[in-house]
Amino acid sequence: MHSLIIGAAGMVGRKLTQDLLKNPQLGSAQITTLDLVDVIPPDRPDTSQITLRCQKADLSDPTIAATLIAQRPEVIFHLAAIVSGEAEADFDKGYRVNLDGTRALFDAIRHEHDRNGYTPRVVFASSIAVVGAPLPYPIPDEFHTTPLTSYGTQKAICELLLADYTRRGIFDGVGIRLPTVCIRPGKPNKAASGFFSGILREPLVGQEAVLPVPDTIRHWHASPRSAVGFMRHAASMDTGAIGPRRNLSMPGVSATVAEQIEALRRIAGDAAVQLIRREPDAAITAMCKGWAPGFEAKRALSLGFRAETNFEHIIQAHIEDELEGVK
Amino acid sequence: MHSLIIGAAGMVGRKLTQDLLKNPQLGSAQITTLDLVDVIPPDRPDTSQITLRCQKADLSDPTIAATLIAQRPEVIFHLAAIVSGEAEADFDKGYRVNLDGTRALFDAIRHEHDRNGYTPRVVFASSIAVVGAPLPYPIPDEFHTTPLTSYGTQKAICELLLADYTRRGIFDGVGIRLPTVCIRPGKPNKAASGFFSGILREPLVGQEAVLPVPDTIRHWHASPRSAVGFMRHAASMDTGAIGPRRNLSMPGVSATVAEQIEALRRIAGDAAVQLIRREPDAAITAMCKGWAPGFEAKRALSLGFRAETNFEHIIQAHIEDELEGVK
Repeated sequence: MHSLIIGAAGMVGRKLTQDLLKNPQLGSAQITTLDLVDVIPPDRPDTSQITLRCQKADLSDPTIAATLIAQRPEVIFHLAAIVSGEAEADFDKGYRVNLDGTRALFDAIRHEHDRNGYTPRVVFASSIAVVGAPLPYPIPDEFHTTPLTSYGTQKAICELLLADYTRRGIFDGVGIRLPTVCIRPGKPNKAASGFFSGILREPLVGQEAVLPVPDTIRHWHASPRSAVGFMRHAASMDTGAIGPRRNLSMPGVSATVAEQIEALRRIAGDAAVQLIRREPDAAITAMCKGWAPGFEAKRALSLGFRAETNFEHIIQAHIEDELEGVK
Repeated sequence: MHSLIIGAAGMVGRKLTQDLLKNPQLGSAQITTLDLVDVIPPDRPDTSQITLRCQKADLSDPTIAATLIAQRPEVIFHLAAIVSGEAEADFDKGYRVNLDGTRALFDAIRHEHDRNGYTPRVVFASSIAVVGAPLPYPIPDEFHTTPLTSYGTQKAICELLLADYTRRGIFDGVGIRLPTVCIRPGKPNKAASGFFSGILREPLVGQEAVLPVPDTIRHWHASPRSAVGFMRHAASMDTGAIGPRRNLSMPGVSATVAEQIEALRRIAGDAAVQLIRREPDAAITAMCKGWAPGFEAKRALSLGFRAETNFEHIIQAHIEDELEGVK
């Protein structure tokens, strides 16, 4: 079976690639060819089991989608996007990459479908940014999408396209509304939400981290491991059970920052917690208050999607996957 | 003040034009110039009060939006769309007209805004087709948009664009989710929903009408007069009170077909009701069951939008506006 990951050089793309190489099985199908595509050249992991092709390509270039789809991959993971801050700062680039790029992909599939009935599975990485404050807690599956960023708007539009193209039988799409991925591995980044990972990741290795918001802030999290699990399940599940509402709010852990910190204390002790330095930032705090506190995710749970159920498990997943089991 | 109606030759466009010519006041502003644009040449009504310009133009032609916006209209009514059946039958045309045409308009405003701060009021005719079954009754304002047609998908996407462009200060947008307009004046049309008007309009003038669905079907209605009122209010209201959720489900009358018929009986008697011939159509009945039974419309009501409150008022509006007060 032939699979394609667009956005393979991003954090979730890299994790998914590693996981598919370790276990190249999707449901009952064996992956024999894996195409990795990104605007940044994706790393080429070692493998002898499957044919691996890495390509530097930009989906917002109108010619690219057709060349990717000409290979007729049976499962497409579409993870490519510019992030929220960049989409907000650069209006044209945000709409070109996040909306027009996705539509170019969907239309390339449509043209191939019209020619010869090609109907791949498409797994689309959406985001909890499709909702916007004021938000109830927990947010029900039937809550409307009123994003407060251009990024969230672009994701919400792509969700609508995914559902319509699927309803018309052009492809078999599943939209995955990812919680904030925590603990993000690697170095601190500039994202306003970066501290949710930083206040755990840095203390776990004896380094200081800054907390810019009050610890009463509640937010919605899942581990990188769960994010990969969502993608795998969406790629292999029986989509007949989903019905026409193809965009699913994933399960996750709703926690206040105080609850995150208590989970860190239980796992790594007071010494780790003391490495968190409180430096309130009014701008980040204001942004955070508009973010999703948590979802019911009833449909996703009933369809077999699974995440951690408490914050200790999220921290434990990081220790196992990133720190070789040693904190 | 300069106003522009795109889609001026459609039913709501013609009614709005007549009404603006009769009373060329929008809030505290006097309309001095009115541009009427449609793919079908709009009728040129008689007027000496204001400068009226009629133009045959297709918004899906990429050059048109910029020429319309170069005139810097202060209030834009965007009513142009191809209808549900056509958007379903012709994928390319539906997306080109209903999505790309709207985006071209919004981007033409954006470019003019970026050049010189131009920030018009934009009133966008959306539709209850943005929601899709299964639906609660009544549908709350916070219910998600999961359209089951390409037309509904295109309207839902334009709603998202309208909210994002408004949030960014590019224009001051209000999206109006119109109920099914009833009683549509004129001849019977081919729309699957046409019977909602036909079973009232034809008997009121002594003609037979066909009812293709069981009389237990419940649907959501407002008169052409109310539709014009929504447009006027959206054009002149203080939008500061709306907040970022710029797309509003309008008020209306929720009624079963049996309730529609009883209202007809009270106004026009048994003789009129006997002109309704029941000819069940399984395909139309199946479609109807997916349509919106009614909305709470709490936000729109609190923002001052008004519609009829019972079906007799809807019939009475038709008698006054179309039959010169005589049934």
